[in-house]
Amino acid sequence: MKKTRVGIEGGAGFAGGELIRLLLGHPRVEIAAATSRTFPGQPVFLAHPNLRGRTDLAFTRKLDYKRLDCLFLAGSHGDAMGNVPAILAEAGPRLRIIDLSGDFRLRDAAQYPRWYTREHKAPGLLKKFAYGLVELNRAEIAKARWVANPGCFATATALALGPLAKGGARGVAAVTAVTGSSGSGASPSAITHHPTRHDNLRAYKPFAHQHAPEVEQILERLAGGRTLELSLIPVSGPFVRGIYAVCQVELPKGWTEKKVQDLYRDVYKDSAFVRLVPEPPSLNAVNGSNHCDVFVAVSQGRIGVISAIDNLVKGASGQAVQNLNVMMGWDETEGLGHAGHYP
Amino acid sequence: MKKTRVGIEGGAGFAGGELIRLLLGHPRVEIAAATSRTFPGQPVFLAHPNLRGRTDLAFTRKLDYKRLDCLFLAGSHGDAMGNVPAILAEAGPRLRIIDLSGDFRLRDAAQYPRWYTREHKAPGLLKKFAYGLVELNRAEIAKARWVANPGCFATATALALGPLAKGGARGVAAVTAVTGSSGSGASPSAITHHPTRHDNLRAYKPFAHQHAPEVEQILERLAGGRTLELSLIPVSGPFVRGIYAVCQVELPKGWTEKKVQDLYRDVYKDSAFVRLVPEPPSLNAVNGSNHCDVFVAVSQGRIGVISAIDNLVKGASGQAVQNLNVMMGWDETEGLGHAGHYP
Amino acid sequence: MKKTRVGIEGGAGFAGGELIRLLLGHPRVEIAAATSRTFPGQPVFLAHPNLRGRTDLAFTRKLDYKRLDCLFLAGSHGDAMGNVPAILAEAGPRLRIIDLSGDFRLRDAAQYPRWYTREHKAPGLLKKFAYGLVELNRAEIAKARWVANPGCFATATALALGPLAKGGARGVAAVTAVTGSSGSGASPSAITHHPTRHDNLRAYKPFAHQHAPEVEQILERLAGGRTLELSLIPVSGPFVRGIYAVCQVELPKGWTEKKVQDLYRDVYKDSAFVRLVPEPPSLNAVNGSNHCDVFVAVSQGRIGVISAIDNLVKGASGQAVQNLNVMMGWDETEGLGHAGHYP
Amino acid sequence: MKKTRVGIEGGAGFAGGELIRLLLGHPRVEIAAATSRTFPGQPVFLAHPNLRGRTDLAFTRKLDYKRLDCLFLAGSHGDAMGNVPAILAEAGPRLRIIDLSGDFRLRDAAQYPRWYTREHKAPGLLKKFAYGLVELNRAEIAKARWVANPGCFATATALALGPLAKGGARGVAAVTAVTGSSGSGASPSAITHHPTRHDNLRAYKPFAHQHAPEVEQILERLAGGRTLELSLIPVSGPFVRGIYAVCQVELPKGWTEKKVQDLYRDVYKDSAFVRLVPEPPSLNAVNGSNHCDVFVAVSQGRIGVISAIDNLVKGASGQAVQNLNVMMGWDETEGLGHAGHYP
Repeated sequence: MKKTRVGIEGGAGFAGGELIRLLLGHPRVEIAAATSRTFPGQPVFLAHPNLRGRTDLAFTRKLDYKRLDCLFLAGSHGDAMGNVPAILAEAGPRLRIIDLSGDFRLRDAAQYPRWYTREHKAPGLLKKFAYGLVELNRAEIAKARWVANPGCFATATALALGPLAKGGARGVAAVTAVTGSSGSGASPSAITHHPTRHDNLRAYKPFAHQHAPEVEQILERLAGGRTLELSLIPVSGPFVRGIYAVCQVELPKGWTEKKVQDLYRDVYKDSAFVRLVPEPPSLNAVNGSNHCDVFVAVSQGRIGVISAIDNLVKGASGQAVQNLNVMMGWDETEGLGHAGHYP
Repeated sequence: MKKTRVGIEGGAGFAGGELIRLLLGHPRVEIAAATSRTFPGQPVFLAHPNLRGRTDLAFTRKLDYKRLDCLFLAGSHGDAMGNVPAILAEAGPRLRIIDLSGDFRLRDAAQYPRWYTREHKAPGLLKKFAYGLVELNRAEIAKARWVANPGCFATATALALGPLAKGGARGVAAVTAVTGSSGSGASPSAITHHPTRHDNLRAYKPFAHQHAPEVEQILERLAGGRTLELSLIPVSGPFVRGIYAVCQVELPKGWTEKKVQDLYRDVYKDSAFVRLVPEPPSLNAVNGSNHCDVFVAVSQGRIGVISAIDNLVKGASGQAVQNLNVMMGWDETEGLGHAGHYP
Repeated sequence: MKKTRVGIEGGAGFAGGELIRLLLGHPRVEIAAATSRTFPGQPVFLAHPNLRGRTDLAFTRKLDYKRLDCLFLAGSHGDAMGNVPAILAEAGPRLRIIDLSGDFRLRDAAQYPRWYTREHKAPGLLKKFAYGLVELNRAEIAKARWVANPGCFATATALALGPLAKGGARGVAAVTAVTGSSGSGASPSAITHHPTRHDNLRAYKPFAHQHAPEVEQILERLAGGRTLELSLIPVSGPFVRGIYAVCQVELPKGWTEKKVQDLYRDVYKDSAFVRLVPEPPSLNAVNGSNHCDVFVAVSQGRIGVISAIDNLVKGASGQAVQNLNVMMGWDETEGLGHAGHYP
Repeated sequence: MKKTRVGIEGGAGFAGGELIRLLLGHPRVEIAAATSRTFPGQPVFLAHPNLRGRTDLAFTRKLDYKRLDCLFLAGSHGDAMGNVPAILAEAGPRLRIIDLSGDFRLRDAAQYPRWYTREHKAPGLLKKFAYGLVELNRAEIAKARWVANPGCFATATALALGPLAKGGARGVAAVTAVTGSSGSGASPSAITHHPTRHDNLRAYKPFAHQHAPEVEQILERLAGGRTLELSLIPVSGPFVRGIYAVCQVELPKGWTEKKVQDLYRDVYKDSAFVRLVPEPPSLNAVNGSNHCDVFVAVSQGRIGVISAIDNLVKGASGQAVQNLNVMMGWDETEGLGHAGHYP
């Protein structure tokens, strides 16, 4: 079997490290090269000490796009929109691209200044990227060459709310979602300073997080129109991995608990990575794996949906590999079948 | 100055330990005795090693209620309702009581079987206990002899929502509240097992936590009728101290952000322990102290209110001391003026 | 390829869960059954929620030993010594056994009352078990049918000190080793109570831990006599996984730093799981994997050796699988080649 | 009572914050001013959110040294040695100074290039600073005007080993000491990046930490000569506060356990902050307080001593206040009598 050659732009970040870890175990893939501005020429294990002895790969400064079958972009937000046109010019449009940044998630270029504080640099490409949330958009991804990998908050929240949107629920979804510190990346900053992050919870960007519009976009598509509005308060949590999203929606008139539960079973019946669980989920049951655990409760006219993912796997690199699998027509779980570590 | 003699029933638990710590620093109080079923006759510092060298007090098996001015009940839920009638029979009705359990928080005895899975054993006493959330019920506490100290989730949630209820907001308050493990007490159990509690988040009792009705009860009193409904999903967090409550309410028609902010300023203008903060609060800014930090945001027709407390201080023992201060007519901050530890 | 049929006694504990996780990914192994006294008849994922969707296996009450090729004993200390004679009587001596408890680690039955507070029940079997620390005892394991899997502290400490012992170093090795809470097992207890374990360090059993004699036993064998004495102070740490062993030994007269480093390179040159690292190791670089990272420093007449392992993998279940591989003549890394998760 | 006017240079760091917290509760002290380069003109609570509502103090850019009775230097290492000569020139030699940096801890200027990688700028002042470890140097501090506050590792280690040195023990003390992240200060850096600090242990500067020589210096003075050599391996731990020092020394010939225990009782009999504990200490029993818990075990010819402190209190700011108390002739525990928080 000839292996698919993949390249990784931005391989020294946390998402890059998880991509390399997962792809090293993928039977159909060969990592051609991974770049790093910080570690060019140095072994990958300097940035990712878990990979010492697992790979001799060294970071390069540049990729030879023409020799790649698929390119993962795991750099900073704002890089991809600037680089993709030149990359495609060099490699030709046949190159598959999976972008882990936010640069190609929103269809409407006009939203970028508001949510990402910058004008979009390649607005013409926006509609050509499929939104890579496999469980809610599998068919489009299967036909795509270019995929925008969802944000971590967006993944947890959209998987929690998608079936309700599809079923036609209306109104406001009030969501509190707590994130681990790895979502802030590999560079130290005030919000990841251990003495003040540890033992702390701190909300930020209330009603203003940039992952909100991509959730509303996919919910709108599922609903066939704007029906469910997202009201999101993100919280920084004192752990490394995970997104834990707690969602509340008013039970639509005439709906029963059975109808709600059936919606979820129906939407996720062919999705190996979404596990509908009978008790509220635990982060440590999904961490290290590509699973999203989803719990649904209905009581006194309210629907509560709680979802849990590993932000670096299902919320980033695992989902990127899942998108590759779907694009290539492989089994969706290829290279992702391992369980997470527990406890 | 003759000191007020206090006794503590259940002094070996976490709330008991914090009570002893705080009362040892209270200039107007003398701890007459503290009981423990586990450590009778043994020094207090066996249960609370931070108090070694700070006090020579030993736990007793029983209290001499007649010689006390005030009794703190810090035992298990269900104990107080069984014991208070006999205690009062022995000590006479002049004994002040501050009950830290849930036994006297709800006015309506009929609610106990539902929320606490037991019939109330002293329903005639329920209406004689003041609800001890000072900032929202100061006048009643000042006249009371017996006080029901609020639950930790209830404290954080009621302080977050009280001004809205008082201002007449209507509808559902969707609340996610995350608690530290010390709220589960000093006895090991599955939910406080370190290997599975650490690095985890896990919701529990969605829409069914026993602190919800006491919040609705105080909100109803503030509103003069049932206007704001509480929809609470509690979450177990991977830290020891703190309640972090994230609340969302629909902005009432015609209200402005200024009106909302003014409500909070007005309700808390004389409350030293509630700090209105201009950014979302941090748990580690309140831990160790009796403060409740409250942040209010208004955006796109939504109100977000986030509150943070130390569950063992403002959510239990510090609030109990605050109640004593108010009942006795002392300065409300007596013995509670210290700052928390940070970071 | 006909798969090797393995059974697991005590499958609901943490070591049992890791065994199942690892064996599910082992290409040459089939899990015939796993027992649990707590969850008989129930799905494995009730005890190990990470395995939901990964296996449909349910726990049984008993194993059919005759139908197994290899038996892993992952129950409590003291169980194996009582059960193995009957198991062998039922299955015949051809059954391979890997015992994860301490019951067959010490050659001398007389040591059991001292270190394990009980008489040994099957002293005649002690010398028939190979000590399963592959990197230091590979040849014996390759010929064994029964293996005593080392303790977690013992694994980290023996791998840190083995080359010195083999090289003939003498004197006292002063070791501080810090353990994660998962080493205390799946049942809640005072030492794993989250409120007091979190943010804490606490030494225990100074100079008296039961893993010390097994380390001295293997060091003695490597040295060909009693030369290096172990002086171990274990510490409970505020994390879930890992053993971090910090060892100090006096530099023998006439030795150079180069001689010391060469000893380590020589002993571990064919051991894929031991990584000699040029900086002090990090727990999070080995967690989730079967690696042991070892760092050696020589300065001012002192040797410092620091080792790090995942206590549940290299310190328990991964090592058990490694022992199976060696016994079966398979590649030692079969089923263990994955990297750990980082960060 | 006229209050003693103190100033704080470097008030926005963690040690500065603890100084302010403690001094606000000190009955004999008034904080005249505190400087910050980052927050000049801004309220203290911006840097230390626990102090919101506790003080209206704002940071200044400069201090008026002439109007101070005592100056605390809580800036970076290297600042004090440069600034003290000019400060004294301005204020006159009557100004008391307590320097929390390492700049005046070593008597011998020749050691600075080796341990602090810089030449000392004011070598003539070195012998005029008393080493501020009260329990081992009380008499000298009582007569001093200028005090060098010990390092956090040095405090825990010297208190653990001091009695042995005084008793004449010889040989090497093998020490592993684990520190919380707050010891690295308030500025983010790679070693305090939450994703990689959390759940990790990592040794650093083995045998080469700059706190080692100050310990050897005080031990030498207690022993009346160089008898006990320190061999220290520091470790970064996954918690915020605390130093946990595990020390091993060979039991001198002819010594009994009783002799060892008597040495400790004798040395610390008048020291309220050192608590000799009968079981290995816990960090969470000292955190928040100025206590040092010390445990001593003797077994099989080895002495094990384990000490625990809060690095920001007894290891920095609490000790600085204790030094002020001793210098001023006040009760040593003034302003420091509170218990820590537990759990």
